[in-house]
Amino acid sequence: MAEPTKARNPEREAFYAEIGEHSLSPLWEVLHDLVPKSPRTPVLPTLWHYEDVRPFLMRAGSLITAKEAERRVLVLRNPGLGGREAITQTLYAGLQLILPGEIAPAHRHTQSALRFVIEGQGAYTAVNGERTLMNPGDFIITPSWTWHDHGNDSDKPMVWLDGLDVPLVAMLDTGFAETYNAEKQLPSRPEGDALARYGSGLLPVDYKPETKTSPVFNYPYARTREALESLSGAQEIDPWHGIKLRYVSPATGDWAMPTMATFMQLLPKGFSTQPYRSTDAMIYVAVEGEGETRIGDTVFSWKPRDVFVVPGWTTHSHHPAGEAVLFSFSDRPIHDKLDLWREERIKH
Amino acid sequence: MAEPTKARNPEREAFYAEIGEHSLSPLWEVLHDLVPKSPRTPVLPTLWHYEDVRPFLMRAGSLITAKEAERRVLVLRNPGLGGREAITQTLYAGLQLILPGEIAPAHRHTQSALRFVIEGQGAYTAVNGERTLMNPGDFIITPSWTWHDHGNDSDKPMVWLDGLDVPLVAMLDTGFAETYNAEKQLPSRPEGDALARYGSGLLPVDYKPETKTSPVFNYPYARTREALESLSGAQEIDPWHGIKLRYVSPATGDWAMPTMATFMQLLPKGFSTQPYRSTDAMIYVAVEGEGETRIGDTVFSWKPRDVFVVPGWTTHSHHPAGEAVLFSFSDRPIHDKLDLWREERIKH
Amino acid sequence: MAEPTKARNPEREAFYAEIGEHSLSPLWEVLHDLVPKSPRTPVLPTLWHYEDVRPFLMRAGSLITAKEAERRVLVLRNPGLGGREAITQTLYAGLQLILPGEIAPAHRHTQSALRFVIEGQGAYTAVNGERTLMNPGDFIITPSWTWHDHGNDSDKPMVWLDGLDVPLVAMLDTGFAETYNAEKQLPSRPEGDALARYGSGLLPVDYKPETKTSPVFNYPYARTREALESLSGAQEIDPWHGIKLRYVSPATGDWAMPTMATFMQLLPKGFSTQPYRSTDAMIYVAVEGEGETRIGDTVFSWKPRDVFVVPGWTTHSHHPAGEAVLFSFSDRPIHDKLDLWREERIKH
Amino acid sequence: MAEPTKARNPEREAFYAEIGEHSLSPLWEVLHDLVPKSPRTPVLPTLWHYEDVRPFLMRAGSLITAKEAERRVLVLRNPGLGGREAITQTLYAGLQLILPGEIAPAHRHTQSALRFVIEGQGAYTAVNGERTLMNPGDFIITPSWTWHDHGNDSDKPMVWLDGLDVPLVAMLDTGFAETYNAEKQLPSRPEGDALARYGSGLLPVDYKPETKTSPVFNYPYARTREALESLSGAQEIDPWHGIKLRYVSPATGDWAMPTMATFMQLLPKGFSTQPYRSTDAMIYVAVEGEGETRIGDTVFSWKPRDVFVVPGWTTHSHHPAGEAVLFSFSDRPIHDKLDLWREERIKH
Repeated sequence: MAEPTKARNPEREAFYAEIGEHSLSPLWEVLHDLVPKSPRTPVLPTLWHYEDVRPFLMRAGSLITAKEAERRVLVLRNPGLGGREAITQTLYAGLQLILPGEIAPAHRHTQSALRFVIEGQGAYTAVNGERTLMNPGDFIITPSWTWHDHGNDSDKPMVWLDGLDVPLVAMLDTGFAETYNAEKQLPSRPEGDALARYGSGLLPVDYKPETKTSPVFNYPYARTREALESLSGAQEIDPWHGIKLRYVSPATGDWAMPTMATFMQLLPKGFSTQPYRSTDAMIYVAVEGEGETRIGDTVFSWKPRDVFVVPGWTTHSHHPAGEAVLFSFSDRPIHDKLDLWREERIKH
Repeated sequence: MAEPTKARNPEREAFYAEIGEHSLSPLWEVLHDLVPKSPRTPVLPTLWHYEDVRPFLMRAGSLITAKEAERRVLVLRNPGLGGREAITQTLYAGLQLILPGEIAPAHRHTQSALRFVIEGQGAYTAVNGERTLMNPGDFIITPSWTWHDHGNDSDKPMVWLDGLDVPLVAMLDTGFAETYNAEKQLPSRPEGDALARYGSGLLPVDYKPETKTSPVFNYPYARTREALESLSGAQEIDPWHGIKLRYVSPATGDWAMPTMATFMQLLPKGFSTQPYRSTDAMIYVAVEGEGETRIGDTVFSWKPRDVFVVPGWTTHSHHPAGEAVLFSFSDRPIHDKLDLWREERIKH
Repeated sequence: MAEPTKARNPEREAFYAEIGEHSLSPLWEVLHDLVPKSPRTPVLPTLWHYEDVRPFLMRAGSLITAKEAERRVLVLRNPGLGGREAITQTLYAGLQLILPGEIAPAHRHTQSALRFVIEGQGAYTAVNGERTLMNPGDFIITPSWTWHDHGNDSDKPMVWLDGLDVPLVAMLDTGFAETYNAEKQLPSRPEGDALARYGSGLLPVDYKPETKTSPVFNYPYARTREALESLSGAQEIDPWHGIKLRYVSPATGDWAMPTMATFMQLLPKGFSTQPYRSTDAMIYVAVEGEGETRIGDTVFSWKPRDVFVVPGWTTHSHHPAGEAVLFSFSDRPIHDKLDLWREERIKH
Repeated sequence: MAEPTKARNPEREAFYAEIGEHSLSPLWEVLHDLVPKSPRTPVLPTLWHYEDVRPFLMRAGSLITAKEAERRVLVLRNPGLGGREAITQTLYAGLQLILPGEIAPAHRHTQSALRFVIEGQGAYTAVNGERTLMNPGDFIITPSWTWHDHGNDSDKPMVWLDGLDVPLVAMLDTGFAETYNAEKQLPSRPEGDALARYGSGLLPVDYKPETKTSPVFNYPYARTREALESLSGAQEIDPWHGIKLRYVSPATGDWAMPTMATFMQLLPKGFSTQPYRSTDAMIYVAVEGEGETRIGDTVFSWKPRDVFVVPGWTTHSHHPAGEAVLFSFSDRPIHDKLDLWREERIKH
């Protein structure tokens, strides 16, 4: 909208002061800030090199136990968000460390969480009585209001990226949480049960989804990688995305989680994406390969395990050095469900 | 969750300072603020008596023209939100005045808006080429990204409540806006077209909804009131709601707008509601009758045209003096779509 | 598909006879009948002039009581269907007469029924404890498995068209029925309750549809006609449909009934529709005006209250003498839900 | 409903004859046949032992080529359906033979087809340019209106069960068919593309389903069997179903096909199902193990590759001799979508 300057004069100023005491304010002084011509996000492009963060994580491991911390996580704070514990406006991300023998005790909360495995293997996540072993590249869900705990039975440190909708839930005032009556849940179903039951192209005959979260809670990287490999030879490559798949719930075909979209993307060797932007800010994790991503005027170089943020409505493109695989997540389901999502594919 | 105090010591403090420079922070120091046991909303119960606000509105009418202001609105600021232009965490509300002969020029934006008519009649809202006349109690929608303008062809001031999802759209970084190339749209369809076409129990044979907003954009109070009247004699009265209806899109049966729920509620004479709370904060407008609403420890007395806020997850009950009618709106569709809505019906 | 003649020889014939005794048969002898290039419906264009049928109806009224008959209906048998009680392959239609003082006793069945009022006024249909008065042009639903009875408290005969999915339900082997324990239901809700509760642009706050049938069960002609009138001046007229609306459930925006589509259509004065066909066979009832309909090589002249059938996938066009209004129904929802519906708009 | 005998008398008979000439008939004479108290299916329990049918299939192989036959199939005719080419009221089934080197040429039709592989391996089905190899127990779809052809590049006969909605499509008059312009399609995508793209827990980022059929068209038995195996140890066994899964579309979680439900069911060793009935008639194929199925008063003994029919609304139970696996299909999606499906779990 046009942004004429409104005359300010003593009479108006006095009026503003007077009504301010009645919890009133003049819209016309702020209209164009409230209703901008296009998004003006405070989120900044930010990159965390895993090789820089890992030593801090290990030091955290010696400074506090998982038990004392409840969750030993270094939050990835977006520097544009003024000290909020947030990586984008609506999402939170952090790197969680569990040392051998440690347990992150059972609790539940309305915030949805994803775990993307960065380093180590052999730790488990248990959700509602079923454990799943965690391997690098696995995408694991601990759905809203489900009991979950983690433990590391291996002999190596285990690190994963946590992604949660904490800032969103805070804004909506919908946060509830409870502590479990024990450190960890006793398994009530064998490992692999959910994937067999819901993730094999079939569903139990009388199953009806009761929530908007996928009943499958581990999407193993082995399977995802195999799918990408199958597609890498065949399909026309999307100029803006390469080969990009979104994780879905087998019960609905919708996003795997109601508040967060998750993606895995293969960029073939010698391929760069064309410039693209969408309203949702994206958090990327490099899984395989190295490369650069240009975000507006910023250029980030990344290697496996690095994490970086592309702010909403910001033009970006990926330029891998060879074949690369990127995991990413955003709050796109919210934009979609509220009719607010937009994208732009920029053509040279 | 349990909230043990974590030991702070110099070593930890030094570590926090060091990682802070790398956009990292320790989750364990803030975990229980981020993941509260139950919602801790900053929103405060607030009441605006129309008789108090109206003189300010009229003074605003002499201080600035509708044209200069673009929208001459006094924002209803929730005092708990630290000066944000917001009535709840996600919603904005204001009282808009259009004087006889004035025009609020055409524009469009991705923010959805509702207009609830408070005073006057004969002004119009035009949406995508169709005008509708506005009468007290009418619920009118100017949907996301539709051209809309308002004008007052009557000889009296016209006041309505604006409700928009401005804070939500800001948080999602999805705000886009455009100014129309003229002050007002030329009508391309006769008045009443949308209501006839979509709101009579039928839909055009080949119609498919393209957005999540109702194709009907005026829900006249005459029709709503008649429905309430029909139901007032008959049904068992819901102890927590009286007779409460929600506005819906005839194209889907879903909420009339994707981001805002709207309701009209009749409280029969001699009836008080039982205590109730839900996660969504509600903005009420008294339409008919007088009464009191208890919100936690606060008691508000209201008369027609008064506006008040019930914060999310806050127990409240209504105690009308005689038959009363209340309009209300909230961000419940967002809670619903994200699996985050909860309610509690409290039984004595 | 190509339809070559297959050689028949004694060896093959012997084989066919032999396997026939084992409930086997050779597909290749009948493949092109089973899988035709395009639909070959046995349904014939058929017209019933009400002035011809009415005397038979009145004679039926003297031959048998409503009570003895349970439902005193003359079935409209499509002559192409070999004596089946069916007006199209999946649908049944008949004209029902209730004389003053008579009752068609309460029962329920899984077959869905529509009633389109032809003559008389003041009779009622009661559905699940709510009565609705019937006036010419009203479209009334007695949903699957709901108790319903009819009675004529007026002093004139009452006639309506029944449309049911009887042949479909027979083919699916899903027919269940029960007799009520009394001749008629006692009203448990006031007349107009359903229309107020569900058909005014609102729904009860906690309402969730439990079936696929509209919760509104009377769509009064007065309201439908007013909508058509509003639209007749304004919109571009669809060359193939004129102004054609479909009845919908306010709870979903979907068809009012799961098995039958219902439509009301205004053809302005001087307007003829262009040739059109769709896979669903249509049953038309002329409501206002006179005209002709060309169906393939057949031309039917119709007046108010006449009923005629357009077979599926048969090109037809309407040529009213002046303004005309046509009600119609078909099994299109089934085609839609099974991905089998097709239409063709023929351009000169 | 009560079924009183209506008096027939000469006057009525004369009336019936007279109106019959006007395509009218008296409902009251047939009401209780049209609206039965419960389903009265003509479908008969029927069993085909594969060892009986196979020799006929092989003789058919020598009597006619696949090319001349277009599809060399022995239709499984239900003896209750009066010579109709149907195994139940709405469904068709047959056993198709393709000999080494033969081709079943490309065509398409609106009828949906499933292929359940009975014997042999190494033949292919090609759908819209992608081939899939067929192995015993695989469930393969050739969706409505997709080009498909089959060929046998192995050195052994290949037999599968065809299941189609031919009788349903005939009743709906929605049959269209076309012959391809060549015997077989040239592959445009590599084998396994669809399963990788749509069946690995992910979907292409911009994919939107355009039809109601699964984008995955081969559900390999290896994967299905593995899922059943995983579940066999863990879950409580459903007394009426054992471990029963339904095939679903990963794009929606709905049935894999719009007109046919498909299931795979494991019955653990020593387990018999409790009596059960549902409105949909079921066609079973024994995949592994031997056993008996009681259908009303009929008892069938089956071995792998045998096919048998359970008529709709007919009580049945399975009694395997050891662990057994059964594939089955029915028209349940139609019942579901039309609000007509019922089931009864009978408790001793």
